[in-house]
Amino acid sequence: MIAVLKRGTTDKEMQSLINWFEDQGLKVHVSKGEYETIIGLIGDTSRIDADLVESLDMVETVKRISEPFKKANRKFHPDDTVIKVGDTLIGGKNLTVIAGPCSVESEEQIVEVAKAVKDAGATLLRGGAFKPRTSPYDFQGLHEEGIKLLLTAKKETGLPIVTEIMNANHIPLFEEVDVIQVGARNMQNFELLKELGKLNKPVLLKRGLANTFKELLMSAEYIMAGGNEQVILCERGIRTFETYTRNTLDISAVPVLKELSHLPVIIDPSHATGMSRLVKPMAFAAVAAGADGLMIEVHNNPSKALCDGAQSLTPAQFADVMQGVEKIRKVIE
Amino acid sequence: MIAVLKRGTTDKEMQSLINWFEDQGLKVHVSKGEYETIIGLIGDTSRIDADLVESLDMVETVKRISEPFKKANRKFHPDDTVIKVGDTLIGGKNLTVIAGPCSVESEEQIVEVAKAVKDAGATLLRGGAFKPRTSPYDFQGLHEEGIKLLLTAKKETGLPIVTEIMNANHIPLFEEVDVIQVGARNMQNFELLKELGKLNKPVLLKRGLANTFKELLMSAEYIMAGGNEQVILCERGIRTFETYTRNTLDISAVPVLKELSHLPVIIDPSHATGMSRLVKPMAFAAVAAGADGLMIEVHNNPSKALCDGAQSLTPAQFADVMQGVEKIRKVIE
Amino acid sequence: MIAVLKRGTTDKEMQSLINWFEDQGLKVHVSKGEYETIIGLIGDTSRIDADLVESLDMVETVKRISEPFKKANRKFHPDDTVIKVGDTLIGGKNLTVIAGPCSVESEEQIVEVAKAVKDAGATLLRGGAFKPRTSPYDFQGLHEEGIKLLLTAKKETGLPIVTEIMNANHIPLFEEVDVIQVGARNMQNFELLKELGKLNKPVLLKRGLANTFKELLMSAEYIMAGGNEQVILCERGIRTFETYTRNTLDISAVPVLKELSHLPVIIDPSHATGMSRLVKPMAFAAVAAGADGLMIEVHNNPSKALCDGAQSLTPAQFADVMQGVEKIRKVIE
Amino acid sequence: MIAVLKRGTTDKEMQSLINWFEDQGLKVHVSKGEYETIIGLIGDTSRIDADLVESLDMVETVKRISEPFKKANRKFHPDDTVIKVGDTLIGGKNLTVIAGPCSVESEEQIVEVAKAVKDAGATLLRGGAFKPRTSPYDFQGLHEEGIKLLLTAKKETGLPIVTEIMNANHIPLFEEVDVIQVGARNMQNFELLKELGKLNKPVLLKRGLANTFKELLMSAEYIMAGGNEQVILCERGIRTFETYTRNTLDISAVPVLKELSHLPVIIDPSHATGMSRLVKPMAFAAVAAGADGLMIEVHNNPSKALCDGAQSLTPAQFADVMQGVEKIRKVIE
Repeated sequence: MIAVLKRGTTDKEMQSLINWFEDQGLKVHVSKGEYETIIGLIGDTSRIDADLVESLDMVETVKRISEPFKKANRKFHPDDTVIKVGDTLIGGKNLTVIAGPCSVESEEQIVEVAKAVKDAGATLLRGGAFKPRTSPYDFQGLHEEGIKLLLTAKKETGLPIVTEIMNANHIPLFEEVDVIQVGARNMQNFELLKELGKLNKPVLLKRGLANTFKELLMSAEYIMAGGNEQVILCERGIRTFETYTRNTLDISAVPVLKELSHLPVIIDPSHATGMSRLVKPMAFAAVAAGADGLMIEVHNNPSKALCDGAQSLTPAQFADVMQGVEKIRKVIE
Repeated sequence: MIAVLKRGTTDKEMQSLINWFEDQGLKVHVSKGEYETIIGLIGDTSRIDADLVESLDMVETVKRISEPFKKANRKFHPDDTVIKVGDTLIGGKNLTVIAGPCSVESEEQIVEVAKAVKDAGATLLRGGAFKPRTSPYDFQGLHEEGIKLLLTAKKETGLPIVTEIMNANHIPLFEEVDVIQVGARNMQNFELLKELGKLNKPVLLKRGLANTFKELLMSAEYIMAGGNEQVILCERGIRTFETYTRNTLDISAVPVLKELSHLPVIIDPSHATGMSRLVKPMAFAAVAAGADGLMIEVHNNPSKALCDGAQSLTPAQFADVMQGVEKIRKVIE
Repeated sequence: MIAVLKRGTTDKEMQSLINWFEDQGLKVHVSKGEYETIIGLIGDTSRIDADLVESLDMVETVKRISEPFKKANRKFHPDDTVIKVGDTLIGGKNLTVIAGPCSVESEEQIVEVAKAVKDAGATLLRGGAFKPRTSPYDFQGLHEEGIKLLLTAKKETGLPIVTEIMNANHIPLFEEVDVIQVGARNMQNFELLKELGKLNKPVLLKRGLANTFKELLMSAEYIMAGGNEQVILCERGIRTFETYTRNTLDISAVPVLKELSHLPVIIDPSHATGMSRLVKPMAFAAVAAGADGLMIEVHNNPSKALCDGAQSLTPAQFADVMQGVEKIRKVIE
Repeated sequence: MIAVLKRGTTDKEMQSLINWFEDQGLKVHVSKGEYETIIGLIGDTSRIDADLVESLDMVETVKRISEPFKKANRKFHPDDTVIKVGDTLIGGKNLTVIAGPCSVESEEQIVEVAKAVKDAGATLLRGGAFKPRTSPYDFQGLHEEGIKLLLTAKKETGLPIVTEIMNANHIPLFEEVDVIQVGARNMQNFELLKELGKLNKPVLLKRGLANTFKELLMSAEYIMAGGNEQVILCERGIRTFETYTRNTLDISAVPVLKELSHLPVIIDPSHATGMSRLVKPMAFAAVAAGADGLMIEVHNNPSKALCDGAQSLTPAQFADVMQGVEKIRKVIE
């Protein structure tokens, strides 16, 4: 961490600041120039509140050099984290494909989709039971009933299930869920993250629409700091000025997050683009960039989906995507 | 709402879609062109799921003409909503100034700040008891104890209090709080909004860092749909490519939100800019643009604030801002 | 095109607007509702100025349904455009790889890099002679001398050359250049585009940092409207709130631009990310998404590059990228 | 400037880098830590190419502490620059209001508008002769004839004139123009900036849609480095995810640019919002924030404007804005 002091700071003021840093266990190096003085801080600065330091009258600016996340940081854990879900491994040398409908609608629907995606090579089943919708008047999901239907589909196919949580009070309902998903809008719902940190269950954490890579890792750190280190990172598009696609899928998330962290990184091309016809090229791109997995919406009858149908593939389209994905994966290995 | 059909859609397909719209109680007008056909939908389209319609194979694009929010919409409620908090009125012809420290730290601190901001003209006291922090290792607030200290300051000064909620389970702790704040990161925490919709207590709803005006109004609609129509909208900066300021304060939020909605609109220049020296000019700008109020961080000793101190004014600086603000308010009336 | 009229518009006002549209050769359909009236315009609306219509007092909003670009539009030219440069074809079933240093520095440098990239499979040589630099104090390129050195490298290797123009007055200097590049900062330098439209030479047009897909196509349209239809589109990253990478590479540009237009689409992973270690995964992603080509910075001694060296590969790294790229291309064919 | 070296850098490598920095006339301070080594550079780092340093294998990251602009920097020129245009002063304690139509259309139009805005208190007349339009098919301005008509209006009213240049070759046509405007799309047309740097004539430089404050100042530096120090900075809205307004007017530009630079700062609320009904509140906000001036579109018959009419006020509306603006200016003095 670097603190730049304003011109005109007295030696006494500077010394009092240096003492304070040293009290926090940091080594301090000072570089004095004509227009500014630079204070370099060496040691564990992750617990220093940069905003607090910057608030001091004598300080012009503060810049972090090392990242404030530790448990999620590859520097301190060089090996890839591999997460076991049922018989499936996520991360490392494994390619995970999570597929299923946006919303669980009926037993018939979810079981049929589950069978189809399993046949095409999916390793986990997804389906929304609690749905975050922008409008209070839109369909909000089947809730507890939706989770029961997912468990039925799991029993029928053996696929572990992934579904989204929106409220820490619902955790008991997720007891048999294999992977709990935190959606983009809740990436910084810190109260929810803390509760998930107390569980012994994988969490799939989606990047928020306006959140940086480092903020995503800080949110992972919230879960990990509680003791639950089974976090899967998911890029699902960020909000930019471009409105042709629903969001802009930031595929550089794959190499960047894998460089900064040891956690698995997957890509959701369905939500990012909002257009089913873009899912295939963006899924290919994600795997080519080295993603540990994909999350793809698949529906048995897209024209009748109750929500987000615009981004769902049919089972046949999904099978076609899977074929290409597996070939690309082999090339980059 | 407009739906544009793809070239090649058959008359039969189109007729089945028209029938479906008519079943939803809408009037349908069709304009056929060489390259596309436009279907205009007239009536209450707020309950139509645009994503669902767009998912149909025959549909190229869907555009909403009227807004999907109703209770928050000025079209249906032309008069300004005025919210009573203690003896203070928010909205209409009133200028509300909410001031106080980022975090409540001690009884001495909060009472001292409360007296100072009251003397300078503030009408409500703010102070954080539950703090959303990006890092799990940063100070998270005094929690229940913080609310008790705010209530002490309220007793000493008579100022109603505003403080942030992060978890619906904490609602019982907020029973004596006058205005509950929902922070930017929770603007689309729909589960929290629904619970706040069941209360009979004003809610100050901050715009998310990457949320549009219309999404802010949809989140207000979530609260209002539950029966609680006392919502105060707050612009606090959006995330853009510019990094010199913490966020970009979008002052056009004032005239735009007041045109779209009847709810009061206030501005938080402290969080938006992240620099105390920018609070004065941005507060002036907000009032000149017609804001119903301001939310300003004030601290009795900024150098020692435990969080976000970079954006806090001293009481003397705040009093200076208030003087200018009141003069500008008179000019624009 | 759709125009929504405000409530309260009189029939006479509306009729005068309808007459005006009909005078422009458009068919007009009117849908009257309780809160608004929708006017649908069918025909060639590309020459209608949407801003002008929206400026009318009676008009609430105007939305374009069809795109205002014609020559660049795939609707009217369904087949891929294939551009011939020397013996190389760009677009269609061909994969084009343009490689070379950021700046041309010396004959030795450019010839050596040209040979290396040719050996690794590059089909065109790039090198900057005129460099757009944010600071007036940074190196601005060798100018005319740089172009001469590129021509020497072309003679030595047979590779056609691509280099950037910043000023229409320099066109005579580009007479022997095979492909003229327009950089991101000049994407809307309409005066330059018009002059390039008069040439019979391929233009590589980069997307601006804050420009939409449709604006990129409108800029291509400027060149094509002048008679020069040999335009190659290039995505090189857009500016977002994320600052870890220099820009955010929007790989969805590939399927989106190829759906909207018949022009070839290439990706520049070097400038987009600003980090040489991200070039390989992003190049792989681009080709997997179906890009017609890549533009990659290669330097024979990255540590000494005079500019943008951070994003340059060594020839050996480039050769490694090329091997993977060719394999991925085969998979997706 | 700070350079952070990677773990594993040898002492010899580090020493060679230190020698290089010292050769550039910089003082070097080294802080060694467990995970990284920080090199602090003191002195005139404005001519150091940060990208080049970051490209070195041993370097993890480079951060600038001081700004790379010098002539535009308030640190080195503490007093406000005041620019004289005819009898009008821009900057310092003066409020400048530039008003006029988007495009010059006819003598009658421009003279009539000029008289009206002068009567209402405008100090300069604006009007577009060369118009940057996204579409090649939209009206592009009257060109040379437009400048002649502006000069006629100047003769009739005495108002100095401001008009936009798009091509350095047109400079001779601007000989009698009082202030040359560089539009947002040309803010980084460095070739144009260099030519304007050779003139002895004020330049009004608009911030690009995706350009930071510092980039705007670097573009001003381009002009000033050539010897022309009469630069007026203009904020006209940046591109964000919000689409309700055309752009997001960043009013914090006023205090920020005035803190970083001594140049005058004006605001263009017309282009920023794209809606005439938002011009008044945003003009008020700009003046309250301390802007040195405003640039406002005024048209004598908005319904017939050939371009951008949506954002034009009538003369009567403009006179109303001016009254409020003058009162707010008095309050903040």
